[in-house]
Amino acid sequence: MAPISYGLPLYQLLAEEEVERIHQASMRILSEFGIAFYDEESRSILKKHGAKVQGDMVMLEPGLVSEYLAKAPCQFTQLARNPRNNLVIGGNAMVFAPVYGPPYVLDLEQGRREARLADFINFVKLTYMSPYLHHSGGTVVEPTDEPVSTRHLDMVFSHIKYSDKAFMGSVTSAENAADTVAMAELVFGTEVIRQQPAVISLINVSSPRRFDDRMLGAIKVYARARQALIITPFILAGAMGPTTIAGTVAQQNAEALAGIVFTQMIEPGTPVVYGSFLTNIDLQSGSPVFGSPESQLGLYASAQLARRYRLPFRGGGMFSSSKIPDAQAGYESVMVMLPTVLARTNFVLHAAGWLENGLVSGYEKFVLDCEILGMLHTWAKGLDLSDDSLALEAIAEVQPGGHHLGTEHTMRHFRTAFYRAGLFDYDSAEKWQEDGAHDTYSRAHRKVKELLASYEPPPIDQSLEEGLRDFMTRRKEAIPLAVS
Amino acid sequence: MAPISYGLPLYQLLAEEEVERIHQASMRILSEFGIAFYDEESRSILKKHGAKVQGDMVMLEPGLVSEYLAKAPCQFTQLARNPRNNLVIGGNAMVFAPVYGPPYVLDLEQGRREARLADFINFVKLTYMSPYLHHSGGTVVEPTDEPVSTRHLDMVFSHIKYSDKAFMGSVTSAENAADTVAMAELVFGTEVIRQQPAVISLINVSSPRRFDDRMLGAIKVYARARQALIITPFILAGAMGPTTIAGTVAQQNAEALAGIVFTQMIEPGTPVVYGSFLTNIDLQSGSPVFGSPESQLGLYASAQLARRYRLPFRGGGMFSSSKIPDAQAGYESVMVMLPTVLARTNFVLHAAGWLENGLVSGYEKFVLDCEILGMLHTWAKGLDLSDDSLALEAIAEVQPGGHHLGTEHTMRHFRTAFYRAGLFDYDSAEKWQEDGAHDTYSRAHRKVKELLASYEPPPIDQSLEEGLRDFMTRRKEAIPLAVS
Repeated sequence: MAPISYGLPLYQLLAEEEVERIHQASMRILSEFGIAFYDEESRSILKKHGAKVQGDMVMLEPGLVSEYLAKAPCQFTQLARNPRNNLVIGGNAMVFAPVYGPPYVLDLEQGRREARLADFINFVKLTYMSPYLHHSGGTVVEPTDEPVSTRHLDMVFSHIKYSDKAFMGSVTSAENAADTVAMAELVFGTEVIRQQPAVISLINVSSPRRFDDRMLGAIKVYARARQALIITPFILAGAMGPTTIAGTVAQQNAEALAGIVFTQMIEPGTPVVYGSFLTNIDLQSGSPVFGSPESQLGLYASAQLARRYRLPFRGGGMFSSSKIPDAQAGYESVMVMLPTVLARTNFVLHAAGWLENGLVSGYEKFVLDCEILGMLHTWAKGLDLSDDSLALEAIAEVQPGGHHLGTEHTMRHFRTAFYRAGLFDYDSAEKWQEDGAHDTYSRAHRKVKELLASYEPPPIDQSLEEGLRDFMTRRKEAIPLAVS
Repeated sequence: MAPISYGLPLYQLLAEEEVERIHQASMRILSEFGIAFYDEESRSILKKHGAKVQGDMVMLEPGLVSEYLAKAPCQFTQLARNPRNNLVIGGNAMVFAPVYGPPYVLDLEQGRREARLADFINFVKLTYMSPYLHHSGGTVVEPTDEPVSTRHLDMVFSHIKYSDKAFMGSVTSAENAADTVAMAELVFGTEVIRQQPAVISLINVSSPRRFDDRMLGAIKVYARARQALIITPFILAGAMGPTTIAGTVAQQNAEALAGIVFTQMIEPGTPVVYGSFLTNIDLQSGSPVFGSPESQLGLYASAQLARRYRLPFRGGGMFSSSKIPDAQAGYESVMVMLPTVLARTNFVLHAAGWLENGLVSGYEKFVLDCEILGMLHTWAKGLDLSDDSLALEAIAEVQPGGHHLGTEHTMRHFRTAFYRAGLFDYDSAEKWQEDGAHDTYSRAHRKVKELLASYEPPPIDQSLEEGLRDFMTRRKEAIPLAVS
C-alpha cells in the first residue's frame, strides 16, 4: 500500500510567534553555547564554511544556519529494489518503518531473549508482508549472534534479500557506512544512487550538544555519496535535556540544525531529515517514560519547527515502556502515534514492534501495531462528503426505527466501507469464550506464526545476490574481529 | 481536580463549507423526511410551535430550527452537592464522567457477572475518589438485583450518598424522571434547581429518526423543571445509519437538532447538550466496532456541528470492543479519547470503565482509564514557553555529554515536572520480573482493592439522608413491581 498522502488539516499546537520563540532560543544555543564535534576533520569543514571553532566546540551564527538550511531539499525520493516501493520522503507523504535498535526480542512462547540474525530476518519478512509498513527500516533487532564488526553486512544483505522495500544504512562507523554504500551501488548502480538516494541512515546526536566521531564518520561518508540522513537528537527531558519540555525542544532544535547544516557544508543538497526522539524520564526511577503527555507536546512542537525550516520531519512511533503487549502498551502506543499522524510526520521509525523502552522488538506487538497503522491509513482518507456518501436517498428510504442492513446503498458499500482490524476481537462475549477467551497477545501470537509460515520472498536477480554475497565474504575476511 | 479548561487549538477536521454541507443535508432530513415522535402531547407541542405534523412524523423547516436553537444556552452550570464540584458544561470546559449503562461488571478475580447494586456503589466510590473524573455519571452499572421499576431510586440515592459530585437522572420513564427531580429538590431546594440545573440526563434517540414515548416523557419532565438534557442519537453506521460516515453524521445531526428544538419549545432556555454516540458496525459480524478510524472522523465532524450551533458538545469516551483490559482495549480507548480531547468535547461520558461494547463496566479498566485521564489533564496545560521553561541557563550549564540530573533547574522542577501514571510500569525488566512480572490488568486489580478499602464517604446532613430514605420508601411502596 502506498504511504499516506496526508491531505487533512495539521494539528498546530503552537502559534507562529511561539515557534519563533523556540527558534530564537536555539539560535542562542548554537551561536553562544555551541555544539561539540568530536572529529577534527568535521571541525575543519565547519570552520572552512564560516563556523567559529574553539577546541571541540563549534558555534554557528543564525545567518550561517539559514544559509545552509536553505540548501537542503524539502523532499526527496528514496529508491527501493522494487521501484514500486520507491518512497517520497517529505511533503505530504507519511512513511512508516519498523522499530529500530532493540537488542532483545519477545514472543509469547519463548519469552524475552537476546535477538539473533534469525530474528532480524523474521522482522524483515514481517515488515515486507505488511501493507502498512512502507519501509524495511534498519536495525530491526541487533543480531547479537553475529560479530559486532561485521553484523552490519548481514543486516544490509538481509534487507535486500528478504524484502524489496527501501532500507536504512549502518552508522556505527565510517567503514560500515562505506560498506552500506558499496552494497547499495551493487543493487542500484554507482551513478544512479548519486541522483536519488538508495540508503537513509539514522544519525543520533549524543545529547546534550555532542556529535561523536563514529556518527560524524558516517555522516561524512553518506553525505559525500549523497545518501539520505536523519539527524536525530536523542533526548530524555530531565537527563540529557532540562526538566522542562520547552527547553528540551530548544536544545533538540539546536542539535538537529547543527547536524543538518554540517551535511550541507559537506555536500549541498544532501537529502536530510529533521529528526526528533524526545520524551521525559520518570523522575522517581530515572527510567525513560514513553507515551507521556509531555512527549506529545514535544512532538507537535518539533514537527512545527521542521516545517518552519521546510525540512522533512521524523518523529513519533508506537512507543511504550511496558514489558509486554498488554493494556499499558496499547494505551501508550496510541498516545504517541495519533499525534505523530496529526503532526504529519514524514518518516515514522518505530511504527511497529517497540516494547520496553526500545530494548525489545516484540513479535506480537509488531503485528498489533500494524492493525493501528491500517486504521491510520483509513483515518487519513478523511471524511468523504460526496452526495453518495451523504446518502440522503438511503436515509429517506429507511423508515423510523428501521435498519440499513439491506439497502441498495449498503449493498454497494459494504465490502469496502469500514476498516477491519483482523486481530481485534469483535465477537460476542459468548463466542469469544467458546473460542478460548484469547487475549490480544495470544491472538497476535498465532498471527505471527501464520505470517512467517506463509512468507514468500520477493524475486532477486541471481547475479545480484551472488555479487552481494561475494562482497560480504571479502569484507568479512578483511575486517578484523573486534571483541563483541 | 477542576475540569480541563481547554485553551489549546482545536483539531478542525472540516472546512467551514464542509460543515455547512452537512448542515444542509440535515435540514433536508428535518424538513422533507421528518422525525417520528411517538407521543401525542409531544407532537401537539411541536405543531403548536410551527412544526408540520403528519401522523407520527414531524417536519421542521430550517428557519424554525434556527429560531429555537438560538434559545438554548451556550453553556450552563450544573450544581453538585459539594458546591466546589459545581460544573460548567460548555465553552472551554471538559467534564469527564464514568461509563454509563453496562448490565455486567468484570474484575480479574470474579470474572464477568451481572452487575448488582453493590457494584453500582463501588463505581460511584471509585469515581468520587478519582481526581480526573469530575462528574459522578448516571447508570454506572445496571443494578440488576434491584427491581426494574424502582432501581432508579437506589441509583440516584447512591450518587447523592456516596459522592458529592454532580450526577445524572433517570430517563426510563416520565415517572422516574419526576422521582429524580423530587430527590434533587430535597438536596438543593425546589427554587434553586430552577435557576441552575442539579440533574443532567441522557436522552437517547432511537435512531433512525425516532423518539420513543419513554424518552419523550422524560424530556418533558426535565425540561419543565429546567433540568439539563443531553440529546444523543445512538447510531451505528451500517445499521441505524447509512454505511458511510458523512450520511450517518447528517442523520445524527438532524435527530439531535430535532430533540434540542423540542426542549426549547417546551421551555425556552432549558440547558441542553448536543450529543453524539456514533461508530460503525463490523460488516462481517454485525457487531459494533469501537475505536475505529471512522468513529474518529465522525467525532470531529459532530463536534464542529455542535460548535456551529453554539451548543455544548457531548461525545467520545474510552471505548473498546475488547472483552478484557488487554492491548486491544488500550489501543482502542486512546484512539477515541485523544480525538475527544482535541475536539474539545464538553461532556465526556464513558471516560472510564467501558469494555465489551459497553456491556461491561470493568473495575480494572476503570482505574487504568483514569491514568490516561490524568495524562490528558497534563497535556491540556500545553507547552509552557516561559523563560524558566526554555531553561537556557540550565542548557548552558550542562557540558556536552553531561546530564541535567543535578542542576539547580532540575532540583526546582523535579517534584512537579512530569505526570506519572502510577499503574504503568517504568521499572527495568529485571525489577519487573523480580516483582512478579505483573501485567497491567493485574496491577490495576490490586489498585481497585486498595481504593475501595480506603474509601471514606463525603459528609452528608443527617436530615437530608433521612428525607431521601423516606422518599424512597414511600415511592417503593407506591410503585407497582413490574416483571423485571
